[in-house]
Amino acid sequence: MRCEIVAVGTEILLGQIVDTNSAWIAERLAETGIDCHFQTVVGDNPERMSEVLTSALERAEALIVTGGLGPTQDDLTREVVAELMGVELVRDMEIVERIQERFSSRGRPMPENNLKQADVPVGASAITEMPGTAAGLICPMPEGKVIYLVPGVPTEMKQMLEGTVLQDLVSRSGERSVISSRVLKTWGHSESGLAEDLAEEIERLNSDGEVTLAFQASGIEGVKVRITAKAANKEQSDSLLDYEETVLRELIGDHIFAVDHQTMESVVLDQLKAQSLTFATAESITGGMIGSRLTEVSGSSDSYVGSVVAYEADVKRSLLNVPKDISVVSQEAVEAMALGVCDLLGADVSVAVSGAAGPYPHEGQEPGTVWMATNVSGDVESFKVLFPFDRAQIRQFTVITVLNALRKRLESPR
Amino acid sequence: MRCEIVAVGTEILLGQIVDTNSAWIAERLAETGIDCHFQTVVGDNPERMSEVLTSALERAEALIVTGGLGPTQDDLTREVVAELMGVELVRDMEIVERIQERFSSRGRPMPENNLKQADVPVGASAITEMPGTAAGLICPMPEGKVIYLVPGVPTEMKQMLEGTVLQDLVSRSGERSVISSRVLKTWGHSESGLAEDLAEEIERLNSDGEVTLAFQASGIEGVKVRITAKAANKEQSDSLLDYEETVLRELIGDHIFAVDHQTMESVVLDQLKAQSLTFATAESITGGMIGSRLTEVSGSSDSYVGSVVAYEADVKRSLLNVPKDISVVSQEAVEAMALGVCDLLGADVSVAVSGAAGPYPHEGQEPGTVWMATNVSGDVESFKVLFPFDRAQIRQFTVITVLNALRKRLESPR
Repeated sequence: MRCEIVAVGTEILLGQIVDTNSAWIAERLAETGIDCHFQTVVGDNPERMSEVLTSALERAEALIVTGGLGPTQDDLTREVVAELMGVELVRDMEIVERIQERFSSRGRPMPENNLKQADVPVGASAITEMPGTAAGLICPMPEGKVIYLVPGVPTEMKQMLEGTVLQDLVSRSGERSVISSRVLKTWGHSESGLAEDLAEEIERLNSDGEVTLAFQASGIEGVKVRITAKAANKEQSDSLLDYEETVLRELIGDHIFAVDHQTMESVVLDQLKAQSLTFATAESITGGMIGSRLTEVSGSSDSYVGSVVAYEADVKRSLLNVPKDISVVSQEAVEAMALGVCDLLGADVSVAVSGAAGPYPHEGQEPGTVWMATNVSGDVESFKVLFPFDRAQIRQFTVITVLNALRKRLESPR
Repeated sequence: MRCEIVAVGTEILLGQIVDTNSAWIAERLAETGIDCHFQTVVGDNPERMSEVLTSALERAEALIVTGGLGPTQDDLTREVVAELMGVELVRDMEIVERIQERFSSRGRPMPENNLKQADVPVGASAITEMPGTAAGLICPMPEGKVIYLVPGVPTEMKQMLEGTVLQDLVSRSGERSVISSRVLKTWGHSESGLAEDLAEEIERLNSDGEVTLAFQASGIEGVKVRITAKAANKEQSDSLLDYEETVLRELIGDHIFAVDHQTMESVVLDQLKAQSLTFATAESITGGMIGSRLTEVSGSSDSYVGSVVAYEADVKRSLLNVPKDISVVSQEAVEAMALGVCDLLGADVSVAVSGAAGPYPHEGQEPGTVWMATNVSGDVESFKVLFPFDRAQIRQFTVITVLNALRKRLESPR
């Protein structure tokens, strides 16, 4: 089964927005086992859209087309596909009602324009999910082929793909099994290192065929290990995932920090909350980034009390009790910061970081040198890292590395 | 002149990376006046690459191909294009030398594999810029058409585009003039509002033809106004840009905060440095994001001393002197925070923010309500904003809005 992705929108062709939809869809297709050999971007121009869709349909059995389903003159995807199908557009009164509901629930009248979004090629069916005013459509084509039309708005597109399109594709592919996947996020080990640790397990799985593993180096999100399982039904595929997760945790459990939509921040905050601990940060090199990322998580205020961003050396000494005679990039300094910020803000737990972000050396330390400390109820641990990266990456990796060190302490029995 | 963009890479087709190159190139082509009607992504597969390049060449006079110029077995762009040209690949000894230099300057031996990167189709010429080990190539095709091969690494690609490819495209298009552009970044006015304020000027320019204006709503980067000027030489086009910038500053100068590569953060830091002022922040709703963004700028330590992230109410009261009897989301609270943080950290200037990021109300304030204060040498000003956005956007817009308020105060005579 081959499926191509076509993104429609002159704003993409003009470089005004980056098409992130195609990458997201491509990833889902890959994990579902459907081949995607081409992605194309075309503007809001009917001739060129028609040309792109026609040649894509010659090469593939299915197309996912994003964009061009809005209410304006520019939105021509429905018209172009109806013409390819050789049918008329008819107004679908059920969709009209759903659009009207959407407007009335916000207390706004529906503009006449939006009726256009209820026009459907004869023979096409609407996708159940409809989070916005654009209806997604499944359009049957000759030779058993199919075109899926979904909106360009990423949240709407994703809901339709996950709710309907991917499963429909899998059924059409003749595949009668259910495919599920789970992502284990790891930190502190390279992709090749993980592959080495899992070599025997991968070999065992290969001979089996139901479960596969894939690695994906993801920068500050670490290396993701995706488990994909194929079974007769969802219950069985989920239980395959559960079993495989247990096996992987035995082999590389030290490196796994999160599963699926969890992040390093959410995992640390969950641990703190579960243990009723309050949390503070003392930041120098990261300038507030640790606090910023923690507070992106809704509900972080349950545990997180705040931070002292001590960018200047004097602030470290006056507010955080870093002694005068020691360098502010040193083990003693970060340990003093980690204790000092808990005293100052009245927190149980803290992390502290101080280092040289570059491009120039700082306090005699070469760029990339970072001292980090974690303080859990007065018990301080510290370590040094040398990151061979640029300024932005050094700061980002510092955030994750120190939070991961804290996570390990919080997860281990005390 | 029509130019298509083709991105080569199986990792893009699998959704492992998002292709940001094509959007960047598309934007440059648009401002250079070259039409781009299609963008395509294809994997590292010679037959499919050949198919994509062939049909793109039928539709357009020029192609820009990114990726597939590395040293591994997967990197096949050179081979595929040589075959389309009907020529052999030959090793270019000048490129070999440049690759060798690159390795020896880092004290590393050159792996044998990298020699492959010096293989060039007969008749193609190397692009002057070569920041990495991949040489960019200009490959002449039949009927006066051309294929540009550039690496997929964004920094390398951009240097080659800006140094050679765009100018070469413009010359080939028969256009004998030089095109320059300048971006004025604005904050605090909508795209349609700016267009209204500039309506007469746009009309005047239209009748003229040498200079054009384009708007681009860019989220937390505000609305960009791009001036593009066309003239016989660089000196003349630059002087057209200078003149137009002066005109625009008279009409919408209040909203312009930065030019080209400047950012809100860099402009504020430059002002602080020029006036020898030290700077501190007191953050609640943003949780450290203001400090994080300021310290992304190398050299920020010249002015920025640090921050108190007072996420918990108690921290605002104990450290920043917010009185017990007033709400922590209020005018009095942010003004106290702005003064308190300057006292605590010994700074001349500060900003303070406190609000409700959502999804739930905070201190009786609906999500999106943010109080902001600026303190310049003890003189405090404050204001309230209600952002109709989600949690992440409310926080990001808060950062820019409060820094913009400080910028205006620093830029006005005191």
